[in-house]
Order: sequence, then C-alpha cells, then structure tokens
Amino acid sequence: MLFHVRMDVRVPHGVDPAWLDELKRTERERAQALQSQGKWRHLWRIAGQYSNISVFDVADAQELHDLVSTLPLFPFMDIQVTPLCRHPSSVREDDS
Amino acid sequence: MLFHVRMDVRVPHGVDPAWLDELKRTERERAQALQSQGKWRHLWRIAGQYSNISVFDVADAQELHDLVSTLPLFPFMDIQVTPLCRHPSSVREDDS
Amino acid sequence: MLFHVRMDVRVPHGVDPAWLDELKRTERERAQALQSQGKWRHLWRIAGQYSNISVFDVADAQELHDLVSTLPLFPFMDIQVTPLCRHPSSVREDDS
Amino acid sequence: MLFHVRMDVRVPHGVDPAWLDELKRTERERAQALQSQGKWRHLWRIAGQYSNISVFDVADAQELHDLVSTLPLFPFMDIQVTPLCRHPSSVREDDS
Amino acid sequence: MLFHVRMDVRVPHGVDPAWLDELKRTERERAQALQSQGKWRHLWRIAGQYSNISVFDVADAQELHDLVSTLPLFPFMDIQVTPLCRHPSSVREDDS
Amino acid sequence: MLFHVRMDVRVPHGVDPAWLDELKRTERERAQALQSQGKWRHLWRIAGQYSNISVFDVADAQELHDLVSTLPLFPFMDIQVTPLCRHPSSVREDDS
Amino acid sequence: MLFHVRMDVRVPHGVDPAWLDELKRTERERAQALQSQGKWRHLWRIAGQYSNISVFDVADAQELHDLVSTLPLFPFMDIQVTPLCRHPSSVREDDS
Amino acid sequence: MLFHVRMDVRVPHGVDPAWLDELKRTERERAQALQSQGKWRHLWRIAGQYSNISVFDVADAQELHDLVSTLPLFPFMDIQVTPLCRHPSSVREDDS
Amino acid sequence: MLFHVRMDVRVPHGVDPAWLDELKRTERERAQALQSQGKWRHLWRIAGQYSNISVFDVADAQELHDLVSTLPLFPFMDIQVTPLCRHPSSVREDDS
Amino acid sequence: MLFHVRMDVRVPHGVDPAWLDELKRTERERAQALQSQGKWRHLWRIAGQYSNISVFDVADAQELHDLVSTLPLFPFMDIQVTPLCRHPSSVREDDS
Repeated sequence: MLFHVRMDVRVPHGVDPAWLDELKRTERERAQALQSQGKWRHLWRIAGQYSNISVFDVADAQELHDLVSTLPLFPFMDIQVTPLCRHPSSVREDDS
Repeated sequence: MLFHVRMDVRVPHGVDPAWLDELKRTERERAQALQSQGKWRHLWRIAGQYSNISVFDVADAQELHDLVSTLPLFPFMDIQVTPLCRHPSSVREDDS
Repeated sequence: MLFHVRMDVRVPHGVDPAWLDELKRTERERAQALQSQGKWRHLWRIAGQYSNISVFDVADAQELHDLVSTLPLFPFMDIQVTPLCRHPSSVREDDS
Repeated sequence: MLFHVRMDVRVPHGVDPAWLDELKRTERERAQALQSQGKWRHLWRIAGQYSNISVFDVADAQELHDLVSTLPLFPFMDIQVTPLCRHPSSVREDDS
Repeated sequence: MLFHVRMDVRVPHGVDPAWLDELKRTERERAQALQSQGKWRHLWRIAGQYSNISVFDVADAQELHDLVSTLPLFPFMDIQVTPLCRHPSSVREDDS
Repeated sequence: MLFHVRMDVRVPHGVDPAWLDELKRTERERAQALQSQGKWRHLWRIAGQYSNISVFDVADAQELHDLVSTLPLFPFMDIQVTPLCRHPSSVREDDS
Repeated sequence: MLFHVRMDVRVPHGVDPAWLDELKRTERERAQALQSQGKWRHLWRIAGQYSNISVFDVADAQELHDLVSTLPLFPFMDIQVTPLCRHPSSVREDDS
Repeated sequence: MLFHVRMDVRVPHGVDPAWLDELKRTERERAQALQSQGKWRHLWRIAGQYSNISVFDVADAQELHDLVSTLPLFPFMDIQVTPLCRHPSSVREDDS
Repeated sequence: MLFHVRMDVRVPHGVDPAWLDELKRTERERAQALQSQGKWRHLWRIAGQYSNISVFDVADAQELHDLVSTLPLFPFMDIQVTPLCRHPSSVREDDS
Repeated sequence: MLFHVRMDVRVPHGVDPAWLDELKRTERERAQALQSQGKWRHLWRIAGQYSNISVFDVADAQELHDLVSTLPLFPFMDIQVTPLCRHPSSVREDDS
C-alpha cells in the first residue's frame, strides 16, 4: 500500500552540531536501506527547503508508522501522511 | 525536470452532466497520452477525495504550464505546483 | 486497516429538495449496510454540525476510496482521511 | 457522553530525557487505567505522527477536563475537543 | 451542561426575500422560546457581523444538536461548538 | 459595555515553577476581585484546554485593556477580543 | 469610543448592475453623512482591492453595529471589527 | 515606487464565454500598453495556475489602485499588494 | 503617502527585563519624535493585546522601511504593511 | 528558468550578535556575487519586514536548491519557491 509523506525538518537553534551530523548520517543510512528494501519507494528534495516528499510502499499504516517514527530526525520533523490509491487513468502498472 | 503537482477537482453544482462526462473522457485520454510520452510520470488518486497527486517530467516550467493549463478539467481544478530536485540520500537513479 | 474519516456535508442552495431527500435516503441505506458488513465501524454526528466522524475498517486505501467516493452525498462532502494504527498504550483488542 | 479528542504531543528541545521517560510511563499507566474504567473508550495512534485520536465516555465536559488536564503530558499537548452525539444512521448501539 | 456556540449566518445571494423573512421570524420565535425555557442561556450579537455568540445549557451534546440543527436558519449557518466547564477561579454559582 | 474575551495560556518550558505558582495565585485573586466588582461578568474554562472564555462588562475598550493587560499571566496569554451588543432576539435584560 | 473596521466587498456574479449602482450611490451618501457627523472618522481605500479600512467614533458597540449593519452593501461585505484604545506613546489628543 | 502584485483570476462558472473572451482581449491590450509605458514593469505567469506575479512602477499607491482596479478582469481577481523597496545587497541600479 | 501598519510585539521569555525596559523607553521616544514630525500620523493600542495599529505618512516605501526597521523593538515585532489611498467617498481632506 | 523566491528571515533570540553579523556579511557577498553572475536576477526588500522577494534565473530546480540552501542565513529563513513562466501578455523579452 502506498502512502505519500511530506517531511519538513525544523532543527531548533542550539542543537549540538556534532550530534546533529551524527543524526543526519544515520538518517541517510536508514533512508538508503529502506529504499533498497523497496519500502521507501521515492524520495525527492523540495527545491529551496529542508523538506522532502516521499512515497512509501508498506503493508499498512502500522508499518508506515514504525518506519517513520524511528527515523533519527523524527523529533525534528513535521510530517503529513496522505494515503494513495490507484488512479483510474493511470497507465503505470506499479503505481498502486 | 520534475514537478510535484496536486490537483483538487471542484465541479460547481449545475454543470451539465453530459458535458462533464465528455470533459472527463478527454481528460483521461490526455492523461494517458502524456503518461505514455513520459511527461506525466506518476499519477495517484488521494484516497477519499476527488484529487490526485502527480509528478511531471518536463523540460521546464513553461512546458509544465502548457500541459496542465490545457487539461479539459483545468477550469475546475485547484492546482499546487512544487518543484523537486534530487535528494542527496536517494538511491534511485531516475528520481531526478 | 483503520481510517479516521471526517465528512462535512455542504449542500449548495438551489438543490432540488426531493432529489436531496432521495440522496439522503440512499446514503442512509448504504451507511447502514456498510456498518452491518463491519466496513464502517463507527459513525458519530458532530454536535451542532451537518458533519460526521467515522472509522472505517477496510483492506486498504483502495477499498476506502471505492466505498467513500460512491456515497450518494460524496459530491457535496468535504472529506478528510487520517490513517490510524494501534496505540502502544491501548488495551482494547479490536482498536487496530 | 462522548467526546472526540485529538492530542498532538510537542516536546520542546532540551527537556530532560529521563524525566520525559518518567512522564511517558505514568501517562501510559493513566491511559490504561482510564481505558479499563471505560472512560477512555478508544485510543488510536495517527500514522506518522506523535499524536493520538481518542474517544472519551464521561459524565460531562467537567469530567473530561478533569481527566485530560491531569495527564502527565498535558503541558506538552495541543488538544482539540469535539462533542459527539448519536448519528441517525448509526446501527451500533453503544456509539452514543 | 454548558456549550459555547458561535453562529455565523451566510445567506446566499438569490434567496427569496419573503421566504427569508419568514425564516427569520420563526428563528426569532424559536430563540425566544428556548431562552424562556432556560436552554439558550445567553445570546449576544457580534458587533458589525451577522453572527451571534451563545451559551446553551442542555442535558448533553445530543440535546444541543437537536436544538441547533432544527433552527430555521441552520442551513445558512456556520456553527462552532465549544464545551465549557466551571473555571476554578469563578465566583459565580450558576456559571457551570 | 460587553466584550467577549478568549484567553489561551501558553507557558514556555523552563519557567520557574514557584514563580509560576505565584503568578497563578495572584491571577486568581485578581480574577475573583474583578468578578466581585461585576467587571468580569462570566468566566468559563474550555474543556480540555488551558484556556478560558470570558465576558467583561466595562465602561469602554480602554478599561478592558487596563484590566486585561495587567493580569499576572498576560505575558503568557494569546488574547482575542470580540465586542458584543444586544441581540434583537434576546429576552434577557442584563445581556447588553 | 474608537473601532477599527475593515470591510471587504464581495459582490457575487449575477447581481443586477443597475441595482448595484444604486446600492453604491446610497452607500456613498450614508458614508459621507456619517463622516460629516463625526461617527465615521477615517475612511481609506486599500490599494488594489475593493476594500476599505475605517475608524469609527461611536458611543459603544451597539451604535457601531447599528451603523454598519444598515449600510446598503452590508450583505456583500466581510467585516472585521477591532476595538481601539489610547496608545501610551501617542501624542495626538484626538486619537482616543 | 515599486509594488509587488499577485493576481489570481477566478472566473465563476456560468460567465458568458464570448463576453469573457472580450474581457481577456481588452485586459491584454491594457497590460501591454501599461508595460510599454513602464508602469507595469514585470509580468510573469505562475506555472500551473491562472495567476500572475507582477511588479508595478508607479508614482504612489493611488496610481497603483487606479491602474489595477480598472483592469477588465478586476471583478474576478484576488489581488495581493506588497510594497517593495531597495534591498541593501542589491547591485542592480533599476530595482528600486 | 499613507501606509497602514499593524505591529504585534512578541517578546521571547528570558529577555533581560532591564534591557527590555530600556528598549521600550527608546521606542517610546522614537514614536513620539516621529509623531511630532508628522511621519507617524496615528498610533492606537489594540484593546487586550500588546499590539498597535498605526498610519504612517511618508514619502515612499523606502522611508517607511527605514523608519520601521530601526525601531528598537523591531526584532520582536510581527509587522503587516498595507498601502492606503484616498477613498472616493471620503470627505476628509487630509486622509490621503 | 525563472523562480520567484520569498525569504523571511527569523533569527531566534539568543544568537550571538558577532556571529550573526558575520553571517550577514557573507550572505551579502554571496548575494552580490550571484547577482553579478546573473543567477539572482532581482532582489527586493519587503517594506517593513526582514524579508526579501527575489527572482532567480537558473538552469533548473537543482541549481536553485544548491544556491539557496547554501546561503549563510538559510537555517534562519522560511522560503517559498514559485516557478514562473512567460506570461502571454508580456512584452518584455527577458522576462522568461
């Protein structure tokens, strides 16, 4: 099942830079592992913002929550989830 | 270049149903043709709404506008455009 | 899988009252049938508004969309969908 | 009487982690005790967010306030309360 | 139990003036009867707007909904309901 | 003259608890004195929130401002003021 | 007493132009008479919008409502009222 | 003096197409004449929307209002005006 | 040229009180000097809020920005600027 | 390709002033260098705000993001990006 997820990262002033770098490094590793597993199907940067738009392909809302809420930057992210389904005019087999 | 586009269709009460059906039919044909050409890369339905989330792959903003503003349902759609670029953690070659 | 759905009904002025009554009658039949099947698990009225808050128990977002978008009053409803999952502090077996 | 309650938890950066863990532990105990008493009838996690959607079954608004405002995480929660009543199309005896 | 209710009246252009006058006349009769019964405890006009702020004293949310949703102008009103309870600093016996 | 006032208290994390308790104690004394004088005519708690809805009966906007802006918790409150007048359907002599 | 009032005029499509012109003519006469009486103290056009920002000098909220709600264009205006009082740094005698 | 202006065109359903075409034709003529005079300094289309972003170079707010409020499509436009001034980091002589 | 300006002062918790008092004192001096020069034409307090509504009479947007952005409390203010022009129904000579 | 960019600078209280001055100095150097290269085509100050409105002329969204996200003040800016294209009524050759 596909979920459209927008993540806006808002790091409060005063966070220790070294710790933040470590969070970002492990965030990247998690993101790449989930992409390799096919769970995190798309990951785009929104131009001009510290934000991404993603599409997840997971079993259900529970798996989505388990993946997203354990991301290292989760405490600093505003997250919006939109459930997707197949569009009747779609011609692309794997967009559902 | 990739653009994320959300389209919310709002048909005012009183539109002639036969004309609306014809608009929808040609909208579908246009959507499928643009998908086949690779211009309209993704097209998903938002669950529970007469709305879609799409990703267009076009030369620039001018081509995006020319495609979207000539869709048959354009006069009845609220449209939000978000320019995308490659995410540094993406592992997918064609998501840029 | 559970989805939280809020539906706000906004009937434009000028809709034929007899036709609207017929829509409401069939809407009620559909709502009751879906409740009996266990698909529409909860249905509450929001006090003071022509709105409801519902919980659907469906296979996935596709089934949710198929059920909601074919409701007779769908053209007159603003709909917000929120995917739910089990809360770690829940003690109720069937709330997931 | 039923109240729909949405709670969004926003913990400011810099809160002592050990103290926060203790708050969460007692919050969970309170939530489970209130569920066992039938006061906190439903408790769901919103997928992808540190938020819940709940339904309380209490005598009146006063009891609701007394329960919610004494939750350990109350100082860190944005809370929206919506009073519910029976929907005329509901077939479920206990949803009122 | 007390509910704070704000009602904003928005009459669409084109409503028959004679019918609207009749709606307003019966609305006034209903409002005055409910005030006499003590159900509609306060009723104020918001300065400069076709809106009121009211306080209802009813058994529960169901009674509130039954009263408000049968007002003659209900189809033309945006309504916001806020449940009230006793303030710990209140010295007024009947404000609860 | 009557003013409808909503006050939402937002205490930033890190405020000294003893000082805050002192602020709350003097706030309560001020609120009760103003109620006794008839200036602060109604004071209700919004269920589930650290907020109140009040009605002030003062000479004019200047007196309202002088009373509200000197409340001990004023620096931590978001305040919305709505001027009220008599509703033509009101039957209550003192609601104006 | 001074009230800051913003009026946004929104005329629905389809209003009879001759009737609208008559409304505007009487609106202008009313506005000028109220200015001459000192009730409508300031009246400015917001650049680029069919909107004005005004300051009324009236006895109280009741008089404000009586003046504003009987303006010929009142049914087509969104109106926001903000009560003003003297600023402690003001040096202008009549701005209070 | 420079003003940033955003215009969103919203044509209500049911407007006569021939009349609308005539409005658009004269709008274009006005826009081009004002550009030639240097009053309407920039005019861009927002991609995917029936909207433009413009920069006007006029004597003052009065001239801006006189130009904008007499555009043929003015009754169908939502307009936002933002006054601009020279940025201290600008190196472009004519951007002020 | 006239500009309508709303300033909302939001002082973060933890600002040194003595320094803040000094800022307020110099702010008041600046405000009074600018009023005496006729640049800051009106200055009103919004009842119940740490906010003001002002009208500036300046040569252009550049002068407005130079005045406002150098106010001592500027770093703690949310500021909204609205350009004004003469209203065709105004009878007051100096409101333009 | 042209992008309209609005940047609102929000510096949290407590940032070291000397470091902030250094950030502003390098921000200005970057802004002027990008203007000289023709990448940052327009840069205006919004009157009364610590904000700018800019137009960038870049190859694509990727180049825009690379330029904007490496600005020294990027961590303190809210940024909104709007893709522009040629307006059919434009007479200016270089506005596309």
